Amino acid sequence: MRINEFKAILDEKNLDFAVFYNLDSARVNPNLFYFSGYKGMGALVIPKNNHPFLIVPEMEYQRAKRSMIKKVYSMEKKRFFPSIYKVVKKNKLKSKNLAIDKNNFTLNSYGHFKKQFKKIKAKDISLDCIKLRQIKTEKEIKLIKKSCSYADKILQKLIKNFKHFETESEAAAFLEHEARKNGLELAFSPIVASGSNGSMPHHEPSNGKIKHGFCVIDFGVKYKGYCSDITRTIYIGKPTQKEKEIYNMLLNIQKNAINQAKQNKKCSKLYEYVVKNLGKYKNSFIHGLGHGLGVEIHEMPNLTLNSKDKIKDSMVFTIEPGIYFPRKFGIRIEDTVLLRQKPILLTKTSKDLLIV
Amino acid sequence: MRINEFKAILDEKNLDFAVFYNLDSARVNPNLFYFSGYKGMGALVIPKNNHPFLIVPEMEYQRAKRSMIKKVYSMEKKRFFPSIYKVVKKNKLKSKNLAIDKNNFTLNSYGHFKKQFKKIKAKDISLDCIKLRQIKTEKEIKLIKKSCSYADKILQKLIKNFKHFETESEAAAFLEHEARKNGLELAFSPIVASGSNGSMPHHEPSNGKIKHGFCVIDFGVKYKGYCSDITRTIYIGKPTQKEKEIYNMLLNIQKNAINQAKQNKKCSKLYEYVVKNLGKYKNSFIHGLGHGLGVEIHEMPNLTLNSKDKIKDSMVFTIEPGIYFPRKFGIRIEDTVLLRQKPILLTKTSKDLLIV
Repeated sequence: MRINEFKAILDEKNLDFAVFYNLDSARVNPNLFYFSGYKGMGALVIPKNNHPFLIVPEMEYQRAKRSMIKKVYSMEKKRFFPSIYKVVKKNKLKSKNLAIDKNNFTLNSYGHFKKQFKKIKAKDISLDCIKLRQIKTEKEIKLIKKSCSYADKILQKLIKNFKHFETESEAAAFLEHEARKNGLELAFSPIVASGSNGSMPHHEPSNGKIKHGFCVIDFGVKYKGYCSDITRTIYIGKPTQKEKEIYNMLLNIQKNAINQAKQNKKCSKLYEYVVKNLGKYKNSFIHGLGHGLGVEIHEMPNLTLNSKDKIKDSMVFTIEPGIYFPRKFGIRIEDTVLLRQKPILLTKTSKDLLIV
Repeated sequence: MRINEFKAILDEKNLDFAVFYNLDSARVNPNLFYFSGYKGMGALVIPKNNHPFLIVPEMEYQRAKRSMIKKVYSMEKKRFFPSIYKVVKKNKLKSKNLAIDKNNFTLNSYGHFKKQFKKIKAKDISLDCIKLRQIKTEKEIKLIKKSCSYADKILQKLIKNFKHFETESEAAAFLEHEARKNGLELAFSPIVASGSNGSMPHHEPSNGKIKHGFCVIDFGVKYKGYCSDITRTIYIGKPTQKEKEIYNMLLNIQKNAINQAKQNKKCSKLYEYVVKNLGKYKNSFIHGLGHGLGVEIHEMPNLTLNSKDKIKDSMVFTIEPGIYFPRKFGIRIEDTVLLRQKPILLTKTSKDLLIV
């Protein structure tokens, strides 16, 4: 995505080229993927005045050839950074001022890198990548919409079948299975947190029986590398009047917070709005109000008290207030939202309290 | 695990304390998890002369309290490294010579860290962690055995049901579903690569129909955070005599390589043994022979040509020769092995060519 805009940034900052790397086949480097569509191990070099290229282990050559990058080099059987250096030399790239992503560059890798690129000045380009990525292209918006629509469909299927699950693990397994069957990846490990488990926002589904009371289900998939994120809290059994009231209070706050999302609004203001309206429950709201998402599940903007971000046209982010009562229960309601002139809900599953 | 041994290392190296951190709730910092059993965001501080403690976001407090670490602090609503600094001050820890893990410390985080810990000397402790982790404790071996036994069981169930799957994604979905149902995580995204897809060692399962010919299935789970890893190549349809021969040649090499795994053997020698025996196929073997595994799917030792590692008692690693013919097919056979006096197979699924 947006590789020409990125090259213009390099040019403007007088940087000869940018290098992104990934040493771990079990991870994806988000910026490397964003610019190349390639998820594996290797390095991506983007020269300011020339075509980008990938340098990958021999075993990944065919897979890399299927990415958006036309020029792919297979690493020789030598160490990682020496291989990159060799290809850069071969391409006769000027290597004086380089751009590196200091959010995804470890201290040890930097040591190995500097042994090759001895006389370089390496400037951090991470913030520019974050800023590019937080404004979504039309193509990205299409992918995220599709991702959200899959998440909706699968979550609704789970809820419809919820009575058949005995344990949280079984319910989570259903979500994973449906995602994978559709050729999707998970955006994160699904959360199914019933009863008192729901008071831990990042509870891991357990093998114990699903408990009565509120049950928080937080789920998202990746469609062609793009994330979705939705949380619904359902009720197992018969809620008391008090429980219904507290759920509906949170739901109203969530809906109003979405409606308040307007262009150039400060994220911290949205957060403050929620805290104010939670009244006596404000200390039970123990996490941020939301986060941007795209190729990563957590991107900018950051919807927290201390955030300096503003929401802008074509940003995609979550709105997810939650309240948690230790050892008792938790409730969280979350949607993925696209900002245009107005906020547009991308996750559309009903938010009325569902009783199963 | 082994926190006292680690504290002894700190003492020996005259380091006041070690700090490990994780800024991303979607990831696990392997060393932080190894020493604490805690998987979420936050920081772990291990003083050489005192009890270790965790500093975590408020939303993770309850989860962190369930880890092996008794002392847990909830972060205030301020930035990450200032919160850590404050708790360290409160604990009156001497902060002159610190240990940090430079394999899991980014350049930008180090900048933020140094703004707080201004006069410190930070020494890299990553290699010591790697060395500790590559020799497994009896408790870890139990967990890995259990993980391998789950992987075997689920893989065998997949193979038994293989005829029911139309696409690679469906087969991969089955593996995920079975893992999750049993309360397990995946060690990595399962690979189901049929026909020509099998020639890409890290092929991602597709929505296309399963192709005839060899089909590579690479799968592993995490049981209580500990990985397993197994690959079997089955055959869809009727293999030719030539295909059977090539499969059995690779199988013999794999079995012999396992038998050659002895204490103090150089990993590079094992790799060379395989290359030598592959004869005319040696250029089709395009990856390492194997890797250690534990809390991460890729740990030390590294079974490659350039490896300086030796295999030792209580190491756990894979042996996984493979041959790949671009646009044609691939075969890989992989087991997880524990080294004692002799190599012990932890994955036990039959390796005879299975025809479905």
